[in-house]
Amino acid sequence: MTEETAVREGRRKGGREARRAARAAPLPDDLKPIRAGLEGGVYRPLSDDQVRRVHEAALDALEQIGLADAIPSCIEYCTAAGAILGDDGRLRFPRAMVEDMVAKAWRNRPLYGRDPLYDLHPQGKKVHFGTAGAATMMVDVEQRIYRNATVQDLYDAARLVQQLDNIHFFQRPLTPCDVNTLEELDINTLYASIAGTTKHVGCSFTLGENMPKVFDLLHAVAGGEAAWRDRPFVSNSNCFVVPPMKFAEDACRVLEACVHGGMPVLLLSAGQAGATAPPALAGAVMQATAEVLAGICYVNAIQPGAPAIFGTWPFVSDLRTGAMSGGSGEQALLSAACAQMAQFYDLPGGAAAGMADSKLPDLQAGYEKAISNVMAGLAGLNMVYESAGMHASLLGFCLESLLLDNDMLGQCLRCVRGIEVTEDSLSLEVMRQVCTEGPGHYLGHSSTLELMQRDYVYPELGDRTSPKEWVEKGRPDVVETATAVKKERLASFFPRHVSSELDKELRQRLPILLARQGMGLD
Amino acid sequence: MTEETAVREGRRKGGREARRAARAAPLPDDLKPIRAGLEGGVYRPLSDDQVRRVHEAALDALEQIGLADAIPSCIEYCTAAGAILGDDGRLRFPRAMVEDMVAKAWRNRPLYGRDPLYDLHPQGKKVHFGTAGAATMMVDVEQRIYRNATVQDLYDAARLVQQLDNIHFFQRPLTPCDVNTLEELDINTLYASIAGTTKHVGCSFTLGENMPKVFDLLHAVAGGEAAWRDRPFVSNSNCFVVPPMKFAEDACRVLEACVHGGMPVLLLSAGQAGATAPPALAGAVMQATAEVLAGICYVNAIQPGAPAIFGTWPFVSDLRTGAMSGGSGEQALLSAACAQMAQFYDLPGGAAAGMADSKLPDLQAGYEKAISNVMAGLAGLNMVYESAGMHASLLGFCLESLLLDNDMLGQCLRCVRGIEVTEDSLSLEVMRQVCTEGPGHYLGHSSTLELMQRDYVYPELGDRTSPKEWVEKGRPDVVETATAVKKERLASFFPRHVSSELDKELRQRLPILLARQGMGLD
Repeated sequence: MTEETAVREGRRKGGREARRAARAAPLPDDLKPIRAGLEGGVYRPLSDDQVRRVHEAALDALEQIGLADAIPSCIEYCTAAGAILGDDGRLRFPRAMVEDMVAKAWRNRPLYGRDPLYDLHPQGKKVHFGTAGAATMMVDVEQRIYRNATVQDLYDAARLVQQLDNIHFFQRPLTPCDVNTLEELDINTLYASIAGTTKHVGCSFTLGENMPKVFDLLHAVAGGEAAWRDRPFVSNSNCFVVPPMKFAEDACRVLEACVHGGMPVLLLSAGQAGATAPPALAGAVMQATAEVLAGICYVNAIQPGAPAIFGTWPFVSDLRTGAMSGGSGEQALLSAACAQMAQFYDLPGGAAAGMADSKLPDLQAGYEKAISNVMAGLAGLNMVYESAGMHASLLGFCLESLLLDNDMLGQCLRCVRGIEVTEDSLSLEVMRQVCTEGPGHYLGHSSTLELMQRDYVYPELGDRTSPKEWVEKGRPDVVETATAVKKERLASFFPRHVSSELDKELRQRLPILLARQGMGLD
Repeated sequence: MTEETAVREGRRKGGREARRAARAAPLPDDLKPIRAGLEGGVYRPLSDDQVRRVHEAALDALEQIGLADAIPSCIEYCTAAGAILGDDGRLRFPRAMVEDMVAKAWRNRPLYGRDPLYDLHPQGKKVHFGTAGAATMMVDVEQRIYRNATVQDLYDAARLVQQLDNIHFFQRPLTPCDVNTLEELDINTLYASIAGTTKHVGCSFTLGENMPKVFDLLHAVAGGEAAWRDRPFVSNSNCFVVPPMKFAEDACRVLEACVHGGMPVLLLSAGQAGATAPPALAGAVMQATAEVLAGICYVNAIQPGAPAIFGTWPFVSDLRTGAMSGGSGEQALLSAACAQMAQFYDLPGGAAAGMADSKLPDLQAGYEKAISNVMAGLAGLNMVYESAGMHASLLGFCLESLLLDNDMLGQCLRCVRGIEVTEDSLSLEVMRQVCTEGPGHYLGHSSTLELMQRDYVYPELGDRTSPKEWVEKGRPDVVETATAVKKERLASFFPRHVSSELDKELRQRLPILLARQGMGLD
């Protein structure tokens, strides 16, 4: 073949060959079509006026109704900052106090990853997707059963998330059942998470008295207290409130320890509309807003500017039964509206989306997760918790779903990125060439090749074959594909950012249950 | 039991009993939480300025590039109205002409159902979901195969849609393969559709010469030409353009026959970004806008105010292979942006959403369909075509998916409805009662009972049981459930709005292939 023939050959092969070649070249991170922190906010379920009305009602609720069951230290901190303890034992927050506290609250600062590559910027309308939850059961898709979750499952979830580009942080999605004490629970939940991923980790801790050991562990892994305080890479998912409008004693003790120890706190109000929150969606948002504002007051009364996330997480009841329905359209609306409330206060906001009621990774789970995730993203929710892996209204967690949901979140992020309208992207000149000079189609056009990687997102596991190709490939089932990928990744990927030596040392003084073998160590 | 005991018993049973009783009472249609024609539009992927830039570029394209391959009658109609035929054979549309034609175009009028109950109002930001497509294959989920579609399949799809509340119109989703001629195709597609449903029907017709028989059939079913013209209950999905920027000869002949015969036309531009439309999303929207504006000019040049739907349907290529990807995030953005373009012109708009690339009703299909459907709804797209049942990027149609997607569309509609913020819904007084006087929860509160049916949507097939209940019920699979429901409905539901006598009479003169037995007739 002469050189000229080769060129012509190449030309004849046309767009497909050229596209394959272009696709083979890796793309720098900043040119990738999607990434953590894309700006949402073009979807606004509430008007500005409606946001303000929710805000005003929340201030009324704090001033007039207040919260019950504050622990003595909470009362002390908050009354010193302007709150009023009523004869009825309820702690009330005058609106001027709330506004002052919001003004001095933590904002426009990162949430750190153990690896700076994964630092998050929960501000404005920037969107980050991550896991969360307290599922006590694992969904075993091969056996079609629910079984008790273990510490190893948590570690496995963390190291899968480490490998999934569209899951930007790892809040522990499950509560292991193979622990004996609450101390073991707190230590092992934390250790399994941070041993598995260098992304930002969220954990929940049960008792204030466990916190010294928690911080001991964190300081050791960070390389000292100063290093930890400089870049706290773990936040505390803190249910400081028992809706409606009561403080939670143990969680408040943990909250105070976190503020003192430099750990960001996710101020989490998880009322359930129709059960522990008003059934009207506006009321559920209002109550969550009031409760989290109380948390903002509390945290900033302890230490002005202490890192805290505005965690309005109103859930939904199926009102026929009173049971939670995380996969409902009502849920999707609640979380999207909460994004707007956080934006109104210019506070880093987090809410829950992606929760499926379905027990298995099936069509129902797909649409339930997708509707709420994409709406949360389009609304510009900073931290979208629960966005991957959850089933049965948070009772079950599924590793196959985690992998499949990563693809779904990729599409959600593509939608968050939106449509750029520029002289170039409007394509009038390209159209003129193609229609009046060119081949009558855009295949193989230079603009097509250029945009192939920069503008278009491709699924990792999702199947885009034609029915014919699909048959030729043996009619693959997407969940079976996910199981195979899961097994391969879990067999081969053992992160080593907690060294074998440090792991040994920590086991001397902390009740770590995760088997070294399970971490790929001796 | 004394009366007093009974009352106390009732009280002890509490909210659940009361909720069951309340739920048993049927709700009037106007109080239902969701219905056809809810207003969307709170999601705006394009800014006003971006919409205007797309518009300006489309006008430039029409004025400078124009469309090739116009048939003589099209040239005649359009040049008489101000279009210019260039030496290069391209028909160009000056911007003043386009603006005039848009001004006199059909708007703010209903699309009729055969039954007035199903009349649609595609205007403003009102949202209607329906089927569409030309799948030649049926997805058989029991055998996990794709097989050729038949006329009976189409009739079955129509009578299922008749029973599905959240699918508001029936555009034929499949092309039957058991027909012998294009005339048989056109007549049978129409007959199977209108025999199966009294909702608004969309059909595509292949040749202008088939249209007299089409109208014969329609007049007969309507009860005469005047009755048909008074309430045309079938629209023509018309691919009058072969993107980029060429007229389609046969479709144009059909279009002219439709305009003369009083049949609304869906002006459908279905370019595929990266193949027959620009790969940049803004360019794909712009080209579709230009092409459909040409169609608006054409229709209104034939007859000012003739009913036409602004059918910008840009599709997406997977740029790695050039194959269509209807389930992509890029697709969801394109259709949502098209909703805004129709709103800009204040024309009834339709685009495609809900297309899955997945071959089966699985998790991938669920998220692919949900993302684009909910975004189309939130963007206020008047007519969301392809929204239920489609697989394999429109190559396959699945009756089980149709049933499951109905639930998904219910959730999308709930999201479109949004959150009402009123003094009542903000719930401050309810919260005060519950927190300071009441039981400390909202279960069984009168507001909860009231909102149970009016504000909350429940799935028909979707499973919301707990893992424990799910095991007790035999771990149902949602697709198997759908298969069972499908079989039961197809075995028992045979609409009779085309009488047995009329059916017999029509078979005398038209090549109707649908077996009378398949319609439940002798």
